[in-house]
Amino acid sequence: MVSRGVVVEAYEQLSAEGWLLARRGAGTTVAATPPRPAAQYTPPDPPRGPLHGPAGTGARATVLRPGVPDLAMFPRAEWRRAYERALRTARDADLDYGDPRGAPRLRTELAGYLGRVRAARLDPDELFVTTGAAQAFGLLAAVLRQHGATTVGIEDPGSPGIRGHLTAHGLRLVPVLVDADGLDVGALAASDAHAVLVTPAHQFPTGVVLAPRRRHELLDWARRTGRLIVEDDYDAEFRYDRDPVGCLQGLAPDLVAYVGSVSKALAPGMRLGWLGVPPDLRQSVLAEKAAADLGGPVLEQLAFAELLACGGYDRQLRRSRLVHRRRRDALIGAIRRHLPQARVSGVAAGLHLVLELPAGVDDTALAAAATRAGLGPVPLSAARLGPSPPAGRPGLVLGYAAHSPDELESAVRTLAGLLDA
Amino acid sequence: MVSRGVVVEAYEQLSAEGWLLARRGAGTTVAATPPRPAAQYTPPDPPRGPLHGPAGTGARATVLRPGVPDLAMFPRAEWRRAYERALRTARDADLDYGDPRGAPRLRTELAGYLGRVRAARLDPDELFVTTGAAQAFGLLAAVLRQHGATTVGIEDPGSPGIRGHLTAHGLRLVPVLVDADGLDVGALAASDAHAVLVTPAHQFPTGVVLAPRRRHELLDWARRTGRLIVEDDYDAEFRYDRDPVGCLQGLAPDLVAYVGSVSKALAPGMRLGWLGVPPDLRQSVLAEKAAADLGGPVLEQLAFAELLACGGYDRQLRRSRLVHRRRRDALIGAIRRHLPQARVSGVAAGLHLVLELPAGVDDTALAAAATRAGLGPVPLSAARLGPSPPAGRPGLVLGYAAHSPDELESAVRTLAGLLDA
Repeated sequence: MVSRGVVVEAYEQLSAEGWLLARRGAGTTVAATPPRPAAQYTPPDPPRGPLHGPAGTGARATVLRPGVPDLAMFPRAEWRRAYERALRTARDADLDYGDPRGAPRLRTELAGYLGRVRAARLDPDELFVTTGAAQAFGLLAAVLRQHGATTVGIEDPGSPGIRGHLTAHGLRLVPVLVDADGLDVGALAASDAHAVLVTPAHQFPTGVVLAPRRRHELLDWARRTGRLIVEDDYDAEFRYDRDPVGCLQGLAPDLVAYVGSVSKALAPGMRLGWLGVPPDLRQSVLAEKAAADLGGPVLEQLAFAELLACGGYDRQLRRSRLVHRRRRDALIGAIRRHLPQARVSGVAAGLHLVLELPAGVDDTALAAAATRAGLGPVPLSAARLGPSPPAGRPGLVLGYAAHSPDELESAVRTLAGLLDA
Repeated sequence: MVSRGVVVEAYEQLSAEGWLLARRGAGTTVAATPPRPAAQYTPPDPPRGPLHGPAGTGARATVLRPGVPDLAMFPRAEWRRAYERALRTARDADLDYGDPRGAPRLRTELAGYLGRVRAARLDPDELFVTTGAAQAFGLLAAVLRQHGATTVGIEDPGSPGIRGHLTAHGLRLVPVLVDADGLDVGALAASDAHAVLVTPAHQFPTGVVLAPRRRHELLDWARRTGRLIVEDDYDAEFRYDRDPVGCLQGLAPDLVAYVGSVSKALAPGMRLGWLGVPPDLRQSVLAEKAAADLGGPVLEQLAFAELLACGGYDRQLRRSRLVHRRRRDALIGAIRRHLPQARVSGVAAGLHLVLELPAGVDDTALAAAATRAGLGPVPLSAARLGPSPPAGRPGLVLGYAAHSPDELESAVRTLAGLLDA
């Protein structure tokens, strides 16, 4: 899964420095003229790395920034063992150019894992290992365009990062409203969207789950129109109150392309994602993947296969879930204490929650003030596509996975002070 | 560097199975109709992996197949140590989304290394770590098209694999003849090529070195027209008779984009390449790289930085050079003994040589017969773009890096038998 926070950031940093010209619904193009400041939401994080500032600050993630796991939890010892074993047992021939889809062993392990944990029905033949979910979306966008699609339905509110990514790949965005049951399929059907991107397990950012009736309506839409559903299963491993809802793909593998990654469970820097596609798209996606890079690095693919096979990935997820849940509870407790006028919405899942603010609060101004105070919340209005906000109150998207209960408590106190000011 | 043999293979396998429609000079498009057999040169290797056959055959590379290093020489112990050290010393923040260009530490090490070994003048700010050279060419093709370029000059004879790759990325190919001094710059200047791709250190497949006068003419062409030179430095680490000629990029960093990879020195399956670009292309390439995948996997990048810093990469190159040279000598000896009617051309460098055959020999038929006999030579005529071969005799491109002197001797004896038959 592409982290919302960070894809936003990548694109918006590029925009902010005048490298990309992002225009709503009009595609992102490379600037032909000298960089100019873009009139856009400014990302909460200070520039990182030598692209934008001094190298090697080693800074931790900003508190409340959504989309970032706790990188200190990366299982270094277990990953080292898995990598060593992969390196020791790989055959020489494995080091040659291989299948552009990725190491067969990983595709087999992954199909089994996603079947077990997400009720996905993926044939390793139709499963691609990608450079993060970002590449998966790019490959799909290219293939959609080849098949004549020019528009894609996206959830509103939704991820600004994904929006930038899809427009950079030449698709025009068709916003479709999200309500308490998830995507409004009637509105989708009435639109000219040639495909749709959804987050059924835990909608970003609202946190609603796509209701069973809507799931069936959505599959009916795809079946009736021959259009493609893209399921972004971005944080489905993290549900704290019950077993997660199975993915949509498992209900109709011929209608749904399935995207995921290790970015939330291990680390975004692994750049390890996957894309399962309906059988009739396999050949087009294969050609795109071969053209993109002839396939990804084999040794870490084999190491990830080891980690899946030995149960290390499951163990990591169990550990992370416990920690995340504790942090979520701490954040909610702090909100109740310090921000009684706000309301937390969305199911108990993922790495972020939505803080709904009283009507009339300018969430963009509040997020900007929080940024100046060293925090990383994203205003809910930045997640909306239309110029005038549709139904829905102002709010903030708050990440909680990367910081301790004390840090979260202190951040919420700061937010409360800003809201009172 | 993208292995010629294998890019040919990847594209031609896709073509052969009807997945890509490769048309000379017309771009490769995804087949809209059911697979049909492509009327093309058939790749010498049997299909590998589950894409085309049973998984895990563990087969070694076919004898005489060009473009493949000896995968048994991959320095597993040294790479394991470098990776462990990278994993141990990486900061948590390194595991987050990073600079799309790649880990700053690797870009700095690489710029130093390429300066020292190839006389490249690369600023880490303008250096991109890519998923093999394949991604580097794809990024460049996309950026060229954004800047209005639709055509690219390519060497004739040249790499069929690169041709397929560039056309898959939407560029029209303009063949430019290669003579004993390398690319004919006068012919390039008379053409409508918006950019040119060259292999100055060891032209593929002829093995000629771009002559000093031609280098200056080429740079003048770029300076005069504002067009881009793309230098594919694909096997420049391997020169056996003298120090390699410095790269073209070092003479004019503002005119030349520089592409390389570890595919020949370590293994193609690492998918680790690099792209240095003139300063004025940095922003466009950055936007393309971010859109492609937000950057590559960080841990192997840091491991490669370790390997460069500790001298392990230099040691591996020294070891490989010794072995390759011995194998090249063995192949040439066998050719003198068994194929006295043939002539070896090209400088003592790289992982392949060209065997020029007596006029009138059908090199495609000979290569096909060799394929049936289990060998992997590529006919020289497959490296030519025009339908009627330009100046130049029939011949075979023979790889020697992956096999022992005895295996090479035996393969040449088989070839001689086929030629006599």
